[in-house]
Amino acid sequence: MDVRYSIEGVEGLPEIGEGVDLAALVAGAVVEPLADGDILVVTSKIISKAEGRVVRAEDREQAITDETVRVVATRQTGDAVTRIVENRLGIIGAAAGVDASNAPDGTVLLLPVDPDASARALATGIRSLTGARVGVIVSDTLGRPWREGQTDIAIGAAGVHVFEDLRGRADASGKALAVTMPCVADELAGAAELVKGKAAGVPVAVVRGLGQLVGDLDLPGARSIVRPPDRDMFRQGAEEAYEDGYRAGFDEAQAEGPLRTE
Amino acid sequence: MDVRYSIEGVEGLPEIGEGVDLAALVAGAVVEPLADGDILVVTSKIISKAEGRVVRAEDREQAITDETVRVVATRQTGDAVTRIVENRLGIIGAAAGVDASNAPDGTVLLLPVDPDASARALATGIRSLTGARVGVIVSDTLGRPWREGQTDIAIGAAGVHVFEDLRGRADASGKALAVTMPCVADELAGAAELVKGKAAGVPVAVVRGLGQLVGDLDLPGARSIVRPPDRDMFRQGAEEAYEDGYRAGFDEAQAEGPLRTE
Repeated sequence: MDVRYSIEGVEGLPEIGEGVDLAALVAGAVVEPLADGDILVVTSKIISKAEGRVVRAEDREQAITDETVRVVATRQTGDAVTRIVENRLGIIGAAAGVDASNAPDGTVLLLPVDPDASARALATGIRSLTGARVGVIVSDTLGRPWREGQTDIAIGAAGVHVFEDLRGRADASGKALAVTMPCVADELAGAAELVKGKAAGVPVAVVRGLGQLVGDLDLPGARSIVRPPDRDMFRQGAEEAYEDGYRAGFDEAQAEGPLRTE
Repeated sequence: MDVRYSIEGVEGLPEIGEGVDLAALVAGAVVEPLADGDILVVTSKIISKAEGRVVRAEDREQAITDETVRVVATRQTGDAVTRIVENRLGIIGAAAGVDASNAPDGTVLLLPVDPDASARALATGIRSLTGARVGVIVSDTLGRPWREGQTDIAIGAAGVHVFEDLRGRADASGKALAVTMPCVADELAGAAELVKGKAAGVPVAVVRGLGQLVGDLDLPGARSIVRPPDRDMFRQGAEEAYEDGYRAGFDEAQAEGPLRTE
């Protein structure tokens, strides 16, 4: 087996406007023809632009509020407030994915309405145009708890396994890898960021050589990566949870009436 | 600029025993000679084995306790208890990195004592043996909040920038990328996992084409990725923080004495 793969940035894409045919643009911009098993990692920004998910910069705060379903944690640093929120997609991050960088002047971009559907549309279009059975990941840049900096992760996926399910498979020494389930979709998004970081204006990367991860278009999308609330041990920031507990404990003690002293 | 890179797995490494010369083994196993700017991503397991960080399986619970500096969150699922802990290295995860998979029978592996130092020793050795200015990442597999599955992240690094500092740099449309600081070390670890996942027993990968990330051996290591406590909004699990708050609120209300009713 050839234990190797490569990632190349797709250069020369024009500025993306609302309503463009992204599948045709991307298929046309890839230099070496796409082949079965190739995976395209597409920055969510160009999907947002193609889908017209653009609002005026002065409506940014309202847009963040609209995209937020739940505030997870808030931190004040000097005058700046960081709000970590859960957005419509179940993704937890700062500013609900509303972002001014790489947006047209005076505007901010919202995340695609349904990045899994966007990925599916793009994969369908590119498969149809090129005949190549490709997968598509839609990526976004997010911070994370406990570790500084950001990584690109998958917020949409189609035609590609988001997890490599090793449960039940043996390790090199023959023991079962009981709980290991690598989130290959997130690793692909991060791997593509490394090549996009080499040059400005490279919103798409092609991963060649990981065809074992490519599959049918009805595979579970990136939504399946979001951990359900009942398995989420960090549903609230520590400070917020402490304050909620404090109020509940205080109220409970008062409701019980005066301290019995025997 | 060639906007492309590749990752290859290093095959044919022998089972690693305590005290082996990892630099010589790795340099000898790489088929195409290493060149300036190559980055080696090495699974922490083989570092642990070379450093003799192996204990008997029956001492696993004690080893986890010894490696733990702080319990962050605990969850009971049926009979199984998941403990998310901070280990000596400041890394937060399950079981403090103590792992039975890919360990010799009847044993478990602890993380290297100082993975940044391990990375530096390996980078120094390989640079000296090959004359190639390479970087080294030491990777481990970790779960994360809010998202299912695991990704490989960097727990050690030497001769490679762990962050690509874009602060102050402009985006494609000329706006400053104010807060973007991609954690390229974690992205490299994840990218390497994708190639290691292609075959069993591939503990090292070579990344070629990202030489702009390679630098001096005294660059900050992976320890600098760990977020300091005063910037950590998820220092405790939500349930644990709520319970601490509840007790404090309850005690405070009791200490204040009976509820004043005017």
